[in-house]
Amino acid sequence: MEYKQRTVTCGQLRKSDVGNHVVLNGWVHRNRNHGGIHFINLRDRYGITQVVVGESVPPAVAEIAEKLHLEYCIAVEGIVQARPDSMINAEMVTGEIEVEVTNLQILSTCDPIPFMIDDESDAKEDTRLRYRYLDLRSKGMQKRIRLRHDFIRAIREFLSNRDFYEIETPTLIRSTPEGARDFVVPSRLYAGKFYALPQSPQLLKQILMVSGFDKYFQIARCYRDEDARGDRQLEFTQLDLEMSFVNRDDVLSLMEELFNDVFRKVMQIELPQHFRRLSWAEAMNTYGVDKPDLRYDLPLVDVVDIAKDSTFGTFKAVLEAGGVVKALRAPASTEVAFTRKYITALEDAAKVYGAKGLAWMKVGANNTLEGGVSKFFAGQETTLIKRMEASAGDMIVFVGDQWKKTCNSLGAVRTKLARDLGLIDPKVFAFCWIIDFPLFEFNEEKGHWEAAHHMFSMPQTQYLDSLESDPGSAIGDLYDLVLNGYEVASGSIRIHDVELQKRIFRICNIPDEVAEERFGFLLNAFRYGPPPHGGIAPGIDRMLMIMAGQTSIKEVIAFPKNTAAISPMDEAPSYIDQAQLDELHLCIKQPQQKD
Amino acid sequence: MEYKQRTVTCGQLRKSDVGNHVVLNGWVHRNRNHGGIHFINLRDRYGITQVVVGESVPPAVAEIAEKLHLEYCIAVEGIVQARPDSMINAEMVTGEIEVEVTNLQILSTCDPIPFMIDDESDAKEDTRLRYRYLDLRSKGMQKRIRLRHDFIRAIREFLSNRDFYEIETPTLIRSTPEGARDFVVPSRLYAGKFYALPQSPQLLKQILMVSGFDKYFQIARCYRDEDARGDRQLEFTQLDLEMSFVNRDDVLSLMEELFNDVFRKVMQIELPQHFRRLSWAEAMNTYGVDKPDLRYDLPLVDVVDIAKDSTFGTFKAVLEAGGVVKALRAPASTEVAFTRKYITALEDAAKVYGAKGLAWMKVGANNTLEGGVSKFFAGQETTLIKRMEASAGDMIVFVGDQWKKTCNSLGAVRTKLARDLGLIDPKVFAFCWIIDFPLFEFNEEKGHWEAAHHMFSMPQTQYLDSLESDPGSAIGDLYDLVLNGYEVASGSIRIHDVELQKRIFRICNIPDEVAEERFGFLLNAFRYGPPPHGGIAPGIDRMLMIMAGQTSIKEVIAFPKNTAAISPMDEAPSYIDQAQLDELHLCIKQPQQKD
Repeated sequence: MEYKQRTVTCGQLRKSDVGNHVVLNGWVHRNRNHGGIHFINLRDRYGITQVVVGESVPPAVAEIAEKLHLEYCIAVEGIVQARPDSMINAEMVTGEIEVEVTNLQILSTCDPIPFMIDDESDAKEDTRLRYRYLDLRSKGMQKRIRLRHDFIRAIREFLSNRDFYEIETPTLIRSTPEGARDFVVPSRLYAGKFYALPQSPQLLKQILMVSGFDKYFQIARCYRDEDARGDRQLEFTQLDLEMSFVNRDDVLSLMEELFNDVFRKVMQIELPQHFRRLSWAEAMNTYGVDKPDLRYDLPLVDVVDIAKDSTFGTFKAVLEAGGVVKALRAPASTEVAFTRKYITALEDAAKVYGAKGLAWMKVGANNTLEGGVSKFFAGQETTLIKRMEASAGDMIVFVGDQWKKTCNSLGAVRTKLARDLGLIDPKVFAFCWIIDFPLFEFNEEKGHWEAAHHMFSMPQTQYLDSLESDPGSAIGDLYDLVLNGYEVASGSIRIHDVELQKRIFRICNIPDEVAEERFGFLLNAFRYGPPPHGGIAPGIDRMLMIMAGQTSIKEVIAFPKNTAAISPMDEAPSYIDQAQLDELHLCIKQPQQKD
Repeated sequence: MEYKQRTVTCGQLRKSDVGNHVVLNGWVHRNRNHGGIHFINLRDRYGITQVVVGESVPPAVAEIAEKLHLEYCIAVEGIVQARPDSMINAEMVTGEIEVEVTNLQILSTCDPIPFMIDDESDAKEDTRLRYRYLDLRSKGMQKRIRLRHDFIRAIREFLSNRDFYEIETPTLIRSTPEGARDFVVPSRLYAGKFYALPQSPQLLKQILMVSGFDKYFQIARCYRDEDARGDRQLEFTQLDLEMSFVNRDDVLSLMEELFNDVFRKVMQIELPQHFRRLSWAEAMNTYGVDKPDLRYDLPLVDVVDIAKDSTFGTFKAVLEAGGVVKALRAPASTEVAFTRKYITALEDAAKVYGAKGLAWMKVGANNTLEGGVSKFFAGQETTLIKRMEASAGDMIVFVGDQWKKTCNSLGAVRTKLARDLGLIDPKVFAFCWIIDFPLFEFNEEKGHWEAAHHMFSMPQTQYLDSLESDPGSAIGDLYDLVLNGYEVASGSIRIHDVELQKRIFRICNIPDEVAEERFGFLLNAFRYGPPPHGGIAPGIDRMLMIMAGQTSIKEVIAFPKNTAAISPMDEAPSYIDQAQLDELHLCIKQPQQKD
């Protein structure tokens, strides 16, 4: 097809271009006909330019102008004109000019569109995903795809400048379940055998360390066949990073410098040079969660001593049973009144995490406490108010239970309070490190210990002798990076010793022969001079979601699946034909009714 | 584990560092004991440094030195010393210094190694792949992985600076066979349904054009389940690129600028600003192949007129049957004598491509022809010698057959001659474009036309009316980039019109309902204002192989599969357990004996 190719983009023309003859290619964004004069907002990736089809154009051009509809793709030829002062649009970068059309060509037509192309589409998610090619035309999606490009580019630049190599690892690998389910790929050549898609390049990046590539990274596609819960995708992208001859603080410092640099370049935001570090125990104790949102403070406060001296039987029983009592100050607010109904809502949030109830009292004038369980704390008013740094109008809420349940329940109340009371500044990006994680947690269901993060993390030296006798106390050199209440990266210093690695496997109920079967190639590699090493893996999708102020990673992925793991645009997954099944030596069993 | 972390790398120390106290971490590359003094070549990614354990070290350090073996990973503490003049090694960047050891620590030991870590390993391929972590320590693999990083980085930089966005497309997509077999991924949620791994992001990048991202690229992982032939991998990497509002020459120019820039940065090589362009017909006629190696010339020469006037009955019969006769000059050489045996070897090369034989004659002194079929060309000596630009000592070889068979057969002879006669300069990188490809070729086996490249390429305007009546003559806006005889990129201006796309499908024996089933989402997208667009996809692995002077892409991939599609290191593919098969609704049919 012959057509006039653009000489400028739709975001380019300024007053200094007036008088120039130009060609624009783009889409009809808006189209108004004012008494025979067509005002067309022509859009491309770079912006919007107003083009005007006046009354004096040749009839053939006027005829084409009559045919235009929204989202037609067209070529426009014309002369740049200054807009009359009254028509200048200060909100458009091209708002001082318009293009007086001399010729028009329709490059392609457009069926009636299912939703308007605007800043953001207001269509339902599945409609947006079915017509993703239209949805991606919205200003919001265009901006976010650009942010994604800029973000990843800045990461690559930073790391490449620091002598990191980006090394591509294979995605058809041996199935080595790391916790979640593997996606598998049937082999045509070997009946009954499968490749697996990587849950992460974890083992391969450790093997790259054994190979001597001491600074590795990769923007890596990862795959997990998990049940849809929350905002997950079957495939996602992480910055996978590993280094040799480093300790924990080397990794943490590098990440701080990386995100300082990237946020400066991409978001024009200065982050603190160092991110706050909290031990896992401290984070749990203070914020009730291992991924605290530090855009606001609202710490949980230990009130075991005060509860012990109170007359509140419930708390006293909790303490006798080895539990704890913690309190949280809900600051007086103009947003929310601390009504019975609201307190019940807070209690519901606490109960999700297992609390049996939420005790409360209000702070009155002159160091008094009122309502709720206040009567049981007679005589302790001053102590309690001082401890809680509370003032008149505040409310104090309490949970007494086992330690973890208490922390998590009150942590949930903290989160809800912050949202409801408007304590969150959406412009803040609050990073923090959580360190000193437990290595193991006991899986009640399976009846054995398992790795809290993964099995390749190095125990801290002082726990090496007691791993088997007291797994629950062992702390590892693990670290999470948390941003605004989301875990955005997870990493550790790794084990590089075959015997220690096997001990960890055994504690996680993986006997030596199973370990050799599943992880033999890693253990083999460790027999050939492995260096000490460690790494981290920030989640690209989730970070971008937060940076873009969104609540779903779908908003920062060009072609995501919906929550049912389907792509409404191409309707993947789909059936394949019998010949292909035969070639793959597969037959399909229809799913049986579950018991 | 506590250890001294490096303060410098093994490639860093110079004479100006003499006297400094340093720590090195690395691997024992070589280890000589000269009368109680240990000379250790310590290696890391950055180089090799000689460290010396002298006689005056504390006994504990001497004891550790005694225990060292090749490829132990160690930490070395010591003082930088100037080497005596006689010991200076000009071939090592660190050759002016050595490190006098004050302390040593073994970070990990190494089992006896299956092959030496050297410039290149001389072990068998499967041994190299089984111990890939050791093979990757070789200088050659380290250099090539670095080259890969540098190459891809330079590509990204160039394109990002030109307003291209890198956009990640999904790898769990709908199966839309493009020619090769898809790898498929069974869905756990939908019994009997599968995702497919992309053979390329072809359709998705076209949809991105519909979305208005007018300059897209991606370093994309692609997958083809093909039978092992030659040097293929199940997964490979391509630079996937697409642009809107461009014509063929825009794409070609961009690529020329890209590779000029990248070769300058990465290889310190100046390429010609423009690459030679040959039409497909010209390439076939002149070099006998659509991917000519232009590091040498050796053109095929049309001698139909001379053959017609000769008395050689075989050629006359060929011409009467509509065939052609072409000749090739084999220049006189000190490398190879044109013996009967050698001529037979050339003939064998021709026969692979279907030639029934290879006629020949030798050029004697004073414009004479001798031997072979020379007697049939009596009286034509001067004409023939002049046409062939031949001199005494040269040989002229001929093939007469159908056009394509003649071209391909003589092209194979050309390739063999160039290699045998040493006409190839391995330092030259000869790029050329092949353009004006046929759109369709007739598949004799299936009995219908199919796309020569793929079905999304735009026919040139003058063939639009005769597509159905004469598919064989239709030329499309397709282009291949050829480097040193390898096709390294393939692309085209695409169809963006639903009706034209359907016509192409129909010619390729894909009726409308099948097209809608398979490619419906692309056709749907084309109903919403698609822009004219085109693109290209250079193969990263193959380009790197050529740039690194290698003959297998395995040499530029960190963890390749072997030719049996197996990874000897982790032994993928492997069996998965019954529970996982059940979850995926699959059962395995054992392969049946082939007929």
